[in-house]
Amino acid sequence: MKKLLKKRSRKAGMSPGSLVHIGEVRQREPHTEVVTYGPQGVEVSRPDLEGECLLLPGESAVTWVNVEGLGRMELLGRLGECFDIHPLVLEDIANTDQRPKAEEYEEYLFVVLKMLNPVENGVVSEQVSLVLGRGWLLTFQEGLDGDPFGPVRLRLQNGQGRLRSQGADYLAYALMDVIVDNYFIVLEGVADSIEYLEEELMHSPTQRTLAEIYRLKRELLFIHKSIWPLREVVGSLVRRESPLVQDSTLIYLRDLYDHTIQVVETVETLREMLSGMLDIYLSSVSNRMNGIMKVLTVIATIFMPLTFIAGLYGMNFRNMPELEWRWGYPAVLILMVAITAGMLLFFRRKRWL
Amino acid sequence: MKKLLKKRSRKAGMSPGSLVHIGEVRQREPHTEVVTYGPQGVEVSRPDLEGECLLLPGESAVTWVNVEGLGRMELLGRLGECFDIHPLVLEDIANTDQRPKAEEYEEYLFVVLKMLNPVENGVVSEQVSLVLGRGWLLTFQEGLDGDPFGPVRLRLQNGQGRLRSQGADYLAYALMDVIVDNYFIVLEGVADSIEYLEEELMHSPTQRTLAEIYRLKRELLFIHKSIWPLREVVGSLVRRESPLVQDSTLIYLRDLYDHTIQVVETVETLREMLSGMLDIYLSSVSNRMNGIMKVLTVIATIFMPLTFIAGLYGMNFRNMPELEWRWGYPAVLILMVAITAGMLLFFRRKRWL
Amino acid sequence: MKKLLKKRSRKAGMSPGSLVHIGEVRQREPHTEVVTYGPQGVEVSRPDLEGECLLLPGESAVTWVNVEGLGRMELLGRLGECFDIHPLVLEDIANTDQRPKAEEYEEYLFVVLKMLNPVENGVVSEQVSLVLGRGWLLTFQEGLDGDPFGPVRLRLQNGQGRLRSQGADYLAYALMDVIVDNYFIVLEGVADSIEYLEEELMHSPTQRTLAEIYRLKRELLFIHKSIWPLREVVGSLVRRESPLVQDSTLIYLRDLYDHTIQVVETVETLREMLSGMLDIYLSSVSNRMNGIMKVLTVIATIFMPLTFIAGLYGMNFRNMPELEWRWGYPAVLILMVAITAGMLLFFRRKRWL
Amino acid sequence: MKKLLKKRSRKAGMSPGSLVHIGEVRQREPHTEVVTYGPQGVEVSRPDLEGECLLLPGESAVTWVNVEGLGRMELLGRLGECFDIHPLVLEDIANTDQRPKAEEYEEYLFVVLKMLNPVENGVVSEQVSLVLGRGWLLTFQEGLDGDPFGPVRLRLQNGQGRLRSQGADYLAYALMDVIVDNYFIVLEGVADSIEYLEEELMHSPTQRTLAEIYRLKRELLFIHKSIWPLREVVGSLVRRESPLVQDSTLIYLRDLYDHTIQVVETVETLREMLSGMLDIYLSSVSNRMNGIMKVLTVIATIFMPLTFIAGLYGMNFRNMPELEWRWGYPAVLILMVAITAGMLLFFRRKRWL
Amino acid sequence: MKKLLKKRSRKAGMSPGSLVHIGEVRQREPHTEVVTYGPQGVEVSRPDLEGECLLLPGESAVTWVNVEGLGRMELLGRLGECFDIHPLVLEDIANTDQRPKAEEYEEYLFVVLKMLNPVENGVVSEQVSLVLGRGWLLTFQEGLDGDPFGPVRLRLQNGQGRLRSQGADYLAYALMDVIVDNYFIVLEGVADSIEYLEEELMHSPTQRTLAEIYRLKRELLFIHKSIWPLREVVGSLVRRESPLVQDSTLIYLRDLYDHTIQVVETVETLREMLSGMLDIYLSSVSNRMNGIMKVLTVIATIFMPLTFIAGLYGMNFRNMPELEWRWGYPAVLILMVAITAGMLLFFRRKRWL
Repeated sequence: MKKLLKKRSRKAGMSPGSLVHIGEVRQREPHTEVVTYGPQGVEVSRPDLEGECLLLPGESAVTWVNVEGLGRMELLGRLGECFDIHPLVLEDIANTDQRPKAEEYEEYLFVVLKMLNPVENGVVSEQVSLVLGRGWLLTFQEGLDGDPFGPVRLRLQNGQGRLRSQGADYLAYALMDVIVDNYFIVLEGVADSIEYLEEELMHSPTQRTLAEIYRLKRELLFIHKSIWPLREVVGSLVRRESPLVQDSTLIYLRDLYDHTIQVVETVETLREMLSGMLDIYLSSVSNRMNGIMKVLTVIATIFMPLTFIAGLYGMNFRNMPELEWRWGYPAVLILMVAITAGMLLFFRRKRWL
Repeated sequence: MKKLLKKRSRKAGMSPGSLVHIGEVRQREPHTEVVTYGPQGVEVSRPDLEGECLLLPGESAVTWVNVEGLGRMELLGRLGECFDIHPLVLEDIANTDQRPKAEEYEEYLFVVLKMLNPVENGVVSEQVSLVLGRGWLLTFQEGLDGDPFGPVRLRLQNGQGRLRSQGADYLAYALMDVIVDNYFIVLEGVADSIEYLEEELMHSPTQRTLAEIYRLKRELLFIHKSIWPLREVVGSLVRRESPLVQDSTLIYLRDLYDHTIQVVETVETLREMLSGMLDIYLSSVSNRMNGIMKVLTVIATIFMPLTFIAGLYGMNFRNMPELEWRWGYPAVLILMVAITAGMLLFFRRKRWL
Repeated sequence: MKKLLKKRSRKAGMSPGSLVHIGEVRQREPHTEVVTYGPQGVEVSRPDLEGECLLLPGESAVTWVNVEGLGRMELLGRLGECFDIHPLVLEDIANTDQRPKAEEYEEYLFVVLKMLNPVENGVVSEQVSLVLGRGWLLTFQEGLDGDPFGPVRLRLQNGQGRLRSQGADYLAYALMDVIVDNYFIVLEGVADSIEYLEEELMHSPTQRTLAEIYRLKRELLFIHKSIWPLREVVGSLVRRESPLVQDSTLIYLRDLYDHTIQVVETVETLREMLSGMLDIYLSSVSNRMNGIMKVLTVIATIFMPLTFIAGLYGMNFRNMPELEWRWGYPAVLILMVAITAGMLLFFRRKRWL
Repeated sequence: MKKLLKKRSRKAGMSPGSLVHIGEVRQREPHTEVVTYGPQGVEVSRPDLEGECLLLPGESAVTWVNVEGLGRMELLGRLGECFDIHPLVLEDIANTDQRPKAEEYEEYLFVVLKMLNPVENGVVSEQVSLVLGRGWLLTFQEGLDGDPFGPVRLRLQNGQGRLRSQGADYLAYALMDVIVDNYFIVLEGVADSIEYLEEELMHSPTQRTLAEIYRLKRELLFIHKSIWPLREVVGSLVRRESPLVQDSTLIYLRDLYDHTIQVVETVETLREMLSGMLDIYLSSVSNRMNGIMKVLTVIATIFMPLTFIAGLYGMNFRNMPELEWRWGYPAVLILMVAITAGMLLFFRRKRWL
Repeated sequence: MKKLLKKRSRKAGMSPGSLVHIGEVRQREPHTEVVTYGPQGVEVSRPDLEGECLLLPGESAVTWVNVEGLGRMELLGRLGECFDIHPLVLEDIANTDQRPKAEEYEEYLFVVLKMLNPVENGVVSEQVSLVLGRGWLLTFQEGLDGDPFGPVRLRLQNGQGRLRSQGADYLAYALMDVIVDNYFIVLEGVADSIEYLEEELMHSPTQRTLAEIYRLKRELLFIHKSIWPLREVVGSLVRRESPLVQDSTLIYLRDLYDHTIQVVETVETLREMLSGMLDIYLSSVSNRMNGIMKVLTVIATIFMPLTFIAGLYGMNFRNMPELEWRWGYPAVLILMVAITAGMLLFFRRKRWL
């Protein structure tokens, strides 16, 4: 449940724009990294943001400020002042219970995304916010373990690909692409679990299978919840012709959009498969019940008449001529065998055996 | 049921615009409060509205008339005259069975909302109507216990935030924001109940679990019913560019819109989870049935043959040689043990034990 | 079934525009009433329509021709000639199997509605057609018992409200408002039944409960079928800016539209509740089955071993030393009590008792 | 299954526009009928189409060429040449596996419809294609038994209605109207079956009831499949303002559109009813199971203890004092009656009896 | 599962536009074929693409480059250079996990489709990409066994139909038509399986039937997943008026669009049928359970009282007068017959026999 609803109640009634961090405080000490790059090279620094706003970007260079950990509200406030960001945007960054969305402001584009990270028994989601300006990009992560942006940082440093020669919009795209790629990894994990469960379902379904189906269903519901608006977000970035996004980058965003649709459809497909598996589970429970009942009925139907006959000749009436007959006992035994054989034949015909 | 359908029948056939209060008369004596404020300060009065319409607002000040309790129809009529409000609007205010909606009139904007209040075993909804004019705002509550607008009133008095320096439209936004925040609190309660039920479902589901699932389902249906049109209402406020709403406030309304969408999605997610839980409940009932049947079948299958054999040698035929044998009794006992062992083996192989 | 599909087959292949009354002939002798009114007063007459078309309205007066009963086709034809109405419209009026709709012709607006009337075990629907022209309004009812338009006629005669001072379009609105109000009354009845069933479901569900749920489901399906297009009809009246409808009336139509949406939503809510109840019913049937099986299993599991032991010592082997023991009988009795106690403990632990 | 998917595979890979008849060859020898009519009169001929294209229509007359049976491809090709019809249109006419559609070409309008014919155990569908040009109309039927266009031909010959005085577009409308009327007849049959099944379901549901529900479900699925696009087809004819359709005919098409919507809604309603019936069937099966289990449990619960007591006093212990008592036997009998009475009371309280 | 989700994870974090083949390497050695044709004739060559880009098309000729097998990335890169294709398009071609889509670039149109091939126990999908330029068409297949484009190649060589006299756009259409025709063949196979299963379901449903229903459901889910976007793709080709597609070809594309809609609807119909079959299966399992329980209950109800009576007279009380009676034994036998007859009558009346 914790995953599905973060406690917002402690913010109820507060003035909008108040900077309160909503979400679990699971991050390490927040830290900030500033990467300035251009076709010529890359420079990385970890400035103390307490001082002046020295980080305004040069002509052809791109400045990328990456904040990991949202625990220090004053840092957020300081960045807000330096880059002239609306208080509501800062509030949305601090509040990690946001729905993915893209908002265009005059001087910047604000995008909120959810990044999924597979953990031991499930998935945790981390909120990533991007503020894209002219020549600069601010990114805010909650700061879980692991470094999702690592590959991009590497490509920047290696000068690999076209990353260095493009603007901040292409950097934003590259980061979002990494996030969407992560979804595929998570879904592959879910698909593997489903494949395994399917095997189990066909051969030896147990109560655990049911619990597992339910767990996966909930996980997909959770993934669906963060993925569904993502599609809308990327789609709106493609459609709205923001001056902050160059035409050459748009083609890449369109490709990203295709990926998000694919993610959405995969989630839907996996959900439908799970629904189908639940049906199958229910049917096979009913089927096994039928099997159990058949055994019971066969046993009862064979032994009840036999027991009755035995009881009949266990009666103590004085005058029971059969008891005196010489072949009485063998005759009764033969009768019993005949009844049993008849019953077995009957069940065989009903295909119960 | 009372919650889902208020008795309108006593109004059927009446002339439209007739001021009849529809809804439970659950409020205390209705009372009115007038708050006039501006950047300089705040003034609160509780005027007798019988007199003249003195409350027309000044230049830079904002007048907020808050009516709690809808029992006195003449009060409503008087306000209608003073602020020149259409009879149908007044009728909608008095009729607490309204669907949330936003309507634009020439001189004012009329918004009806539902506020949810968690009570002991469920949720009650209260209708809140806002009439936003140029420099003035009328709000009408049904007047349940509690003061939902308290935080806003406090912020006004403290001069905290930007409330005092903004117009009546920002006040309207602040009040709606409080109402939407309340939804989150209610949903957190529901989510807690679901979390608890989930635990119960996995370990010891009872008939009570089922009744509880059903109760929550109905509650969410009820919440859904008041929340769904809310989304539309706030959305229409954002889209339609009313001259009564300033551009600076629009950004806040957009934020509010995000919140309502989040509420709607959370309700949907919770409903899907409940549906999933019902499936699980049904499956586990079937599973337990299987368990019961297995016990019965195992017992019957073991003891029926044994009882038959005992009955067999309880027959009174004169000529039953086995009865005379010295080791007849032990032999039968051994046979019985062998049969039992065989059955147990059979069940073990079928994984029933 | 009769309610859901009226026999149209006898009209198949006929020329369109042929005036054939489709529907049950349940009405009394058809009769016509002409009401002419203006701000000054009201005049009611029951003219013989065989004569000339004298009823053309004066300047400021409104003429309302109300036809109850559709049995006399020549009456319909005569009115069609007098008011110059398209044959297809007349056909639609005569055919009471119409779907609610609104059609605009050059000189008039044609609206078909369904009015619901609660009867003993269900609901019957009556088709009401309105033809709104400049200064005149024709209404056609099937002529069931009861006078749904009674309240409006009363308001006309009393001069109550604004009815007399408004045009024919407002009269049309007032009549439609009465019809929609009737829906609320019918839905209140259904809601009461559901509330009662819910109680029954929780405490003592029977086969009758199921039949009742099914009956209500069908009734709501039927109501849904007549209500769904109604929403569209009123909505189209609001949107299309017909010269026949004055702006002042439009506000009232918008209000009516809100009501129809509320009716539609209430129907949906009630339907979802019924679906939920069916689920609960099924679960509780399964649960009761579990209860029954538990009783059977407990009884069988306790008595089968006991009966076996009794049978064992009922065997007639000559050499059964236990039978000769002095404390053999009490020992067996103690064994039996011990077995029973053990079983009871086992079931208590499984929470079956 | 045959009904749902006609074998197209033998056409796979062929050049588009190849004239191959897809569908069962169920028709009689194909024949062609040419009807030329105007306000003055009607002329019917059955020309040999091998010759010249003499059938071009005169000034005010309308030429209707009706082809029954699609077995002769060269006939189709000849007509295509005479009326200058696109090869793809001819292909669609020959391929009776078309989806209903309306396509506008420069010189003609091409409409494909499905006509339903009730047969003994179900419904068969026949494809009807119309090509409407200026003053001429080609119709193609598959040529099943029966003459669906009979009534229209009759009205033409009688000069009844306005048929003769209108253009070819009105004739096309009249034929489509006949087809849609046929849907109502088919649906009435289905509704009758459902009504009958409902009765059966409430009183004595059998396995056959289930099979019948399933059969009707499939039939409605089949009807739905041909009816759903029909709505779209007629709707597009109304909306697109083709020069081939006169304004006076448009009103009739609008009426036809209403009818198709009604058909679609009736199908949906019937489908929902069937779904409801399946739920009821399942519930009543569960209910009957409960009844059966109750009987079993009551019997077992009463007789197991009794049999145990009887077995107890059938034991052969030497030392069983009760056996010697004078009133031992009656005492045991009384005990048994008491147990039985207690059990019956217990079941009565549980409402099992 | 493999079918539903191809491993993309190994590409996560790579620079977009990197040419990595995603998908199983199931193809033979990749090979390329170049077909140049015009009204005059056809020329086929299998050039080594390592050399220069000599394949630029002449004036009136069409060049079709068909690449089978995607294993050699440098081939793809070379073609990309020659025809000036965007790296993202090349990436999409190499990545066989694409969703069907159509994208318009300045100089070419890029279409990705899925082709279905029926294999032994199911269906495999192959990605086909088309790049349509002015006078040239590139096609990329994964290179499974079989030659789906065979019929088109044949028609080209035979000069059959209008293929040679049309442009590259018509060739693209012809190839897509072949692919869609393949869907019909696959669906016919599924329909046959369903028909067979239906028979089985009505007469002797087994656990295997259930597994088969589930398998078909999954297969249709898979087909649905590749077919749904196809509709969109063809629809967008029809709507967007690309200069690369001539008007004469548009009519054919419209026809193709009709076919895809038909495919989509058939898939939906088949899925609904399977859902219906699952319901029937569940019902019939319940029904059979009822049958089993009836047998058990009848047997138990008849023999339990009889066994009890036999046990009663097996008691060893000294004082049991009935035992001494002369007709005691026959009287008890008659009593037993009477009880049996009574029970049988009771069951007959309950229609259990």
